Amino acid sequence: MWAIPEGYIPGWSNGPQPEFLSHETVCILNASDLDAHVEITVFFSDREPAGPYRVTVDARRTLHLRFNDLKDPEPIPLATDYASVIESDVPVVVQHTRLDSRQAENALLSTIAWSEP
Amino acid sequence: MWAIPEGYIPGWSNGPQPEFLSHETVCILNASDLDAHVEITVFFSDREPAGPYRVTVDARRTLHLRFNDLKDPEPIPLATDYASVIESDVPVVVQHTRLDSRQAENALLSTIAWSEP
Amino acid sequence: MWAIPEGYIPGWSNGPQPEFLSHETVCILNASDLDAHVEITVFFSDREPAGPYRVTVDARRTLHLRFNDLKDPEPIPLATDYASVIESDVPVVVQHTRLDSRQAENALLSTIAWSEP
Amino acid sequence: MWAIPEGYIPGWSNGPQPEFLSHETVCILNASDLDAHVEITVFFSDREPAGPYRVTVDARRTLHLRFNDLKDPEPIPLATDYASVIESDVPVVVQHTRLDSRQAENALLSTIAWSEP
Repeated sequence: MWAIPEGYIPGWSNGPQPEFLSHETVCILNASDLDAHVEITVFFSDREPAGPYRVTVDARRTLHLRFNDLKDPEPIPLATDYASVIESDVPVVVQHTRLDSRQAENALLSTIAWSEP
Repeated sequence: MWAIPEGYIPGWSNGPQPEFLSHETVCILNASDLDAHVEITVFFSDREPAGPYRVTVDARRTLHLRFNDLKDPEPIPLATDYASVIESDVPVVVQHTRLDSRQAENALLSTIAWSEP
Repeated sequence: MWAIPEGYIPGWSNGPQPEFLSHETVCILNASDLDAHVEITVFFSDREPAGPYRVTVDARRTLHLRFNDLKDPEPIPLATDYASVIESDVPVVVQHTRLDSRQAENALLSTIAWSEP
Repeated sequence: MWAIPEGYIPGWSNGPQPEFLSHETVCILNASDLDAHVEITVFFSDREPAGPYRVTVDARRTLHLRFNDLKDPEPIPLATDYASVIESDVPVVVQHTRLDSRQAENALLSTIAWSEP
């Protein structure tokens, strides 16, 4: 179980897209020899959680998934605080990155997600 | 017990507020089914700690709390080094983020807080 | 075993080089008294992994290795999502940093890599 | 024992000082009731380590120490790759932050240091 308490997709962007579209990414590495079936649950400050969003990360592959692209069961609202929990049936490693391009120059943040020991 | 050794609220800001107000945020995820009663203690370089500041994070919710907004028992001074310890009666996960908008373009940093094993 | 799920070398740069060449760096610290023989495997979203790339970090030394400089067995493609796993025969510590200079002002991200407990 | 594989003090700065002097900071939190006697050892890519640098972090205090300010036994060279190991006689927590102001707009990175389990 991985957790990312910080989530926020900026409400607007500057610069050529898709490179400079403001986005939040969850990067999942599956270095194992089995496909990983991953479930993402999204938590908010003022309503019940959304999801689970289901994705498969094939064996020996990485998936850099933009929260902006999650549509089923519902899109993630922009300019809204959220958090996420990532669960997988095979061991994976999870990193969180944001590109914020609301201003002329982009800003970046990244951290390895927290994993339950 | 979670710890964030780095704390610093920049003394000024650029850009439209509240989005681009320079701020430090502690993001707390409570993915459990119980409300979390959280206590934040703030440490300084040259005086005794402040707090505890008390907040509740409801079950299955996330709280993105700006240190700028802490007022009771006392506000956090700007442009001052500090650190923080976050304790909760149910398991939570904590991430630390700063938006620094002192210059024309914002800068971001983020890291999962340190958790006592 | 260390893992970095996020990898992306921006496709272009601004500013004087080599300081402001967009790059991804893996920083390896070998604080031990034995040379560390390190193997890096690079994972992609849509093909089998590349590598291993082999480097030696001498005893009591740090190596800040740019992914841009990895050439054998093959260079890392630009503007492509990847991830990496770092293995060593003596204990090392690994940190991941990116300088993104695609725009006029540079952006930075950094995180300690994930280590298998 | 805490480790920070990434270290680099940019060789120049922009903007008013001391706020916007390019710097690297090690933030040490001593939440205990005993003074912490801390030793910092600095590792390089091509020479033997420097140090130990000795600092005291008083009980219930935080110290945000700029590597730029370390002078004894020797200053840290600018624009040079390094890494650091932080040891303390009482439990502390360590975070690493860089402000890079070589260009007109500053960039920030931060991560909790790696702690030996």
